[in-house]
Amino acid sequence: MTVDVAGAAAALQGADNILILTHRRPDGDTAGCAGALCRGLRQLGKTAYILENPEITKRYAPLIIPCYPTSDFNFAYIVSVDIAEEKLFPDTAEQYKGKVDLVIDHHRSNSGFGAKNLIRPDAGGCAEVLYDVLAALGVRFTRDIAECIYIGVSTDTGCFKFSNTTAHTHAVAAACLTAGIDGGEINRVLFETKSMPRFQMERIVFDTMEFFEDGAVAVALLWRTDIDRTGADMDDLDSIASLTRQIEGVQIGITLTENRDGTVKVSVRTTKEMDAAAICKKCGGGGHIRAAGASLDCGMEEAKAAILTAAREQFHAKQ
Amino acid sequence: MTVDVAGAAAALQGADNILILTHRRPDGDTAGCAGALCRGLRQLGKTAYILENPEITKRYAPLIIPCYPTSDFNFAYIVSVDIAEEKLFPDTAEQYKGKVDLVIDHHRSNSGFGAKNLIRPDAGGCAEVLYDVLAALGVRFTRDIAECIYIGVSTDTGCFKFSNTTAHTHAVAAACLTAGIDGGEINRVLFETKSMPRFQMERIVFDTMEFFEDGAVAVALLWRTDIDRTGADMDDLDSIASLTRQIEGVQIGITLTENRDGTVKVSVRTTKEMDAAAICKKCGGGGHIRAAGASLDCGMEEAKAAILTAAREQFHAKQ
Repeated sequence: MTVDVAGAAAALQGADNILILTHRRPDGDTAGCAGALCRGLRQLGKTAYILENPEITKRYAPLIIPCYPTSDFNFAYIVSVDIAEEKLFPDTAEQYKGKVDLVIDHHRSNSGFGAKNLIRPDAGGCAEVLYDVLAALGVRFTRDIAECIYIGVSTDTGCFKFSNTTAHTHAVAAACLTAGIDGGEINRVLFETKSMPRFQMERIVFDTMEFFEDGAVAVALLWRTDIDRTGADMDDLDSIASLTRQIEGVQIGITLTENRDGTVKVSVRTTKEMDAAAICKKCGGGGHIRAAGASLDCGMEEAKAAILTAAREQFHAKQ
Repeated sequence: MTVDVAGAAAALQGADNILILTHRRPDGDTAGCAGALCRGLRQLGKTAYILENPEITKRYAPLIIPCYPTSDFNFAYIVSVDIAEEKLFPDTAEQYKGKVDLVIDHHRSNSGFGAKNLIRPDAGGCAEVLYDVLAALGVRFTRDIAECIYIGVSTDTGCFKFSNTTAHTHAVAAACLTAGIDGGEINRVLFETKSMPRFQMERIVFDTMEFFEDGAVAVALLWRTDIDRTGADMDDLDSIASLTRQIEGVQIGITLTENRDGTVKVSVRTTKEMDAAAICKKCGGGGHIRAAGASLDCGMEEAKAAILTAAREQFHAKQ
């Protein structure tokens, strides 16, 4: 059943003993949504917890860890936030598949796996939807709730840079700043700070980058020994593949990562003239039109030659 | 005389044959303010032009060049936008010193060199002030005006990342998106695209960067031969000094640029624990607490040793 903001608020108003689920590889949006909802429900006098997410990173831990259940408890109402499908449940949520009472999300692909579903694909961050729900519930917009909402909205919109940013996104951000958050400091940590491993990974991307077709095709190579030397983790490698495409004139940006087992992960990012999925398909992969990938069971140089051939073919076909 | 938004609007309402001045080394804010004001005044049926700025770069040219005077004209009313002091007038504006009728600005240091002065240091971008003035004038917020305002606000706030971003900043951005601008595409060009010379300059910063004091002090060297080889211009070098400070743990980020005459420009950026102005003062320079500079009349290695000594002294004094 599809519900609107008022419907979701009414459902939450009538519920208690609520458990909130976040998704696998939790990002700022799922953590921010869960943190805001849990704190908002508690403000209304309800019992609410966030299910432990074993993959939470240091960066987003403060949003959800203080809300983990401290004892065994029978939850009567299950809410998922920013989860597009049940396959994305963390391992800890296996038992809740098929049992979600309320889905709050913004992914267009969400088929509505809950008893009630509030899905708003127009929202840049799911935290924008949460903001509207909390407002409908009459929750006071305190600084700690505003921090959760702001982190959700800003991380999912690239700090208001991406095309999913709307007037509503900015209106929610304005409300967060009015609530007293230190936006400048939050943004410095989230968007202006590179860990030393991240810095070293970027240096490797920059150093290995080669250009072809008059700068329209760029290729960067991340060798395993380099990755290991930097000590880079998942957070550090996040979005590293998009660096190649940021250079003016690059229409096809390719990043090759040497896996531990010797296979090669290929990431392709394109500007609007080129089709990343079509390029990757030629190497047995797939994905979206601007962002796609493939896994090649060969060495780095061979993988580079294969994907470069596919990229150049498309480049010439589109001239 | 200090005026508020209503006072500035009333002054403009009563004026005609208006000339708008932008500042030396024009950025997105001064160009955006001028572009929005000129288009707004014309919408009200007034004659308005923007004084030619010989230093305008390709990026911001579309905002102001269409508004350059096409013939000799006797201007009856002079407005400056985003200009903190008359010293920052471009060469073309020499004759207007002491003759500005209305100053619209957001720099705290502005002493008010106009007959009337609307100065709002709380505004992240001066374009926010322009937005309020145009609203008070009853100007329709068309897409082309919204683009000018958006570019002004977003460039001066680091796309809503910096601590000068307020609820009002976001409210203005929301109005711009509602007016139909393509924020995602504007941001891609302004914030996600690196020119090839810029990319090469960043590569040099990354490659030359050295760390001291357990990573708390970083130094990057931009040699003249490297700069010349990349073909980098003013736009490409913009904010390059902030790269050193972006690395986690760096509290004092130093960038040394070899000038054409052999002298060295020193740029220091600090996190809140350290005082950039105090460090630069020891080398005969000055500036703000987080961003300061100095000009040294010696070679790169000598300059590096001098500023590094000053930086380390402060670092140890603050332990």
